[in-house]
Amino acid sequence: MRTITLLTDFGTRDHFVGAMKGVMLGIAPGVRIVDITHELGAYQIAQARFLLGQAWPYFPKMTIHVAVVDPGVGGARRPILVVAAGHLFIGPDNGLFSALVQRDDARVRHITNAKLFRQPVSSTFHGRDIFAPVAAHLAKGLAPSKCGPRIQDAMFDPLEKPIRTGKRTWSGSILHIDRFGNLITNLPAEDFAAMRFLLRIGPAEVVERAATYAAITPGEMAIVEASHGFLEVAAAQSSAASFLKVAAGAPVELETY
Amino acid sequence: MRTITLLTDFGTRDHFVGAMKGVMLGIAPGVRIVDITHELGAYQIAQARFLLGQAWPYFPKMTIHVAVVDPGVGGARRPILVVAAGHLFIGPDNGLFSALVQRDDARVRHITNAKLFRQPVSSTFHGRDIFAPVAAHLAKGLAPSKCGPRIQDAMFDPLEKPIRTGKRTWSGSILHIDRFGNLITNLPAEDFAAMRFLLRIGPAEVVERAATYAAITPGEMAIVEASHGFLEVAAAQSSAASFLKVAAGAPVELETY
Amino acid sequence: MRTITLLTDFGTRDHFVGAMKGVMLGIAPGVRIVDITHELGAYQIAQARFLLGQAWPYFPKMTIHVAVVDPGVGGARRPILVVAAGHLFIGPDNGLFSALVQRDDARVRHITNAKLFRQPVSSTFHGRDIFAPVAAHLAKGLAPSKCGPRIQDAMFDPLEKPIRTGKRTWSGSILHIDRFGNLITNLPAEDFAAMRFLLRIGPAEVVERAATYAAITPGEMAIVEASHGFLEVAAAQSSAASFLKVAAGAPVELETY
Repeated sequence: MRTITLLTDFGTRDHFVGAMKGVMLGIAPGVRIVDITHELGAYQIAQARFLLGQAWPYFPKMTIHVAVVDPGVGGARRPILVVAAGHLFIGPDNGLFSALVQRDDARVRHITNAKLFRQPVSSTFHGRDIFAPVAAHLAKGLAPSKCGPRIQDAMFDPLEKPIRTGKRTWSGSILHIDRFGNLITNLPAEDFAAMRFLLRIGPAEVVERAATYAAITPGEMAIVEASHGFLEVAAAQSSAASFLKVAAGAPVELETY
Repeated sequence: MRTITLLTDFGTRDHFVGAMKGVMLGIAPGVRIVDITHELGAYQIAQARFLLGQAWPYFPKMTIHVAVVDPGVGGARRPILVVAAGHLFIGPDNGLFSALVQRDDARVRHITNAKLFRQPVSSTFHGRDIFAPVAAHLAKGLAPSKCGPRIQDAMFDPLEKPIRTGKRTWSGSILHIDRFGNLITNLPAEDFAAMRFLLRIGPAEVVERAATYAAITPGEMAIVEASHGFLEVAAAQSSAASFLKVAAGAPVELETY
Repeated sequence: MRTITLLTDFGTRDHFVGAMKGVMLGIAPGVRIVDITHELGAYQIAQARFLLGQAWPYFPKMTIHVAVVDPGVGGARRPILVVAAGHLFIGPDNGLFSALVQRDDARVRHITNAKLFRQPVSSTFHGRDIFAPVAAHLAKGLAPSKCGPRIQDAMFDPLEKPIRTGKRTWSGSILHIDRFGNLITNLPAEDFAAMRFLLRIGPAEVVERAATYAAITPGEMAIVEASHGFLEVAAAQSSAASFLKVAAGAPVELETY
């Protein structure tokens, strides 16, 4: 039996996630459901993209990943299905799947088959009425082609990648601040692996490098070789985010020397 | 194999939910356990009722729903089992199941069969010692009649419904504030569907209607046709609760015109 | 199929727990995974010990408990496997398993078999790269002896137990503050069962005893006979922690009279 993962901004205080799971179990009684997180910031689509990218590759092939950060629910944005890298992804077409739709093997479909939906479809809760039942039908073996027609114009968010702003400078942003207050940027570590550089975040400049969190000089911040492949700034046994007073989305500048 | 859902005020920081799940798996190794939420406000029984009502109908028949908001644990309040609408509900008899016990098809039992309990029964943690093991035995197929005798006097909370206070006015309350700060009232949308009305919440009057959250005029609040069937007040891309500085339980007045 | 429980300080906002679950499901597709909590305080190893001790005994034998509070990740601390009381425990050797490694039936192994690990092993996320895959292999039936050699020197934290400081006084600490603000000390209730005593926490002295939370005198605090076997201080329908302004780790003094 297949696995469905959930990544939403619905929180865990409300009935939203429970109702989605109930709908899925009614359609596919044996499906396994795994929560990635429900604490995405509302409207924080870049953060959602980062967390999805850090979770899905670790699941078995044919896993169905439902991602819902959907400020436009009930409006014109399309529900889509992306099949890529042997995994399936379902959610709104608002840039959430930017990294996936650009893959050579990606097949994107506009989900239009209303027979799969819970009826009546509400205007405010497509997680329960569209995304959950479609995921459950796919988990039971429904062919992706039954969901709707192929499309070529799924939304791609150019903010996905940092921008080169000079010979020695790049402009990026903080994708995500994790529970420990570590700042995860959108600067790929391997692009700068052979270079000497510093990071500017607000008034701070960070140059120190550390292989592990425990190796950071007490009282200092450092750039850590973290497990996700992006440059990350951490403070010794404390929160870099609190120290620098920055939030997700804040700009970061990289300068080589 | 059957499903057990959990709706409690135990939070997710402690061992409470884990211990309950361990007890259930020891009795019914194949049972599926789904968390609705564990972040109910302590003593917020109206809120618990709302969230239970928004989750249970979406689960398959024969699901067992365990709801524990239990300020009276260890005191005189009875543990009860409600069988209604083809679902089973377990929890303390403190008004949590007001909407269910009034149904024509409801069968309510006082859970008295101590052979089903974990022994010794603590005076402070009936979730682990009574509700979890009884739910697990039911999931394995125990007949409800083995739990204890039928009762007719399960607690009903009259605050469940709004009160008509005049020819054109109703007095209700905020049942729940969701993660997005939307205010969910106890005013059933269908009762007022054909009328023109405004809502008064503290010093604010809300008249605008919106079909989706995205359709609310920027900077304004509106009454949204939400997925749960109650009148809900939302602010454009922000928290109505923060703006109005109200909490769950606050009064709401509806006036038609 | 076996059960794996998870107890970490990874929070639920990030990808950490999802990535661990993906790795486990890739190795052991049928395994059941139960979250105990992911909201442990970073570096709060005594608290982690308490919560682990309150959860594991309620699970069926042969359950595999993964506990990760790991400020030393990537440094010299060893990953270990403890087999005790018919359960298996996996995590860093930093005192987390103090109560277990002292049991007569405990068998402790240094996890060294890199063939079981996810490769490459990152320096910052052993939860995903070491602990998750080893747990999944054990869930599939791998013999503990395949994980690595027996060791006799697993870390034991002497702060595990209170210290007698005089003929009538003991010095202890607050192990954990639960969601309700109740203060759970490291003073075993049965050691003081036949005595009259008071507890000093900061400027407060607590003498009143209560069998249930509901029985505490309104406006007062009391020592409650809680379900976990340690002396606990609770306030009537409110948070003792907020009232006393104390945090986990704060000292407690017990004096008999």
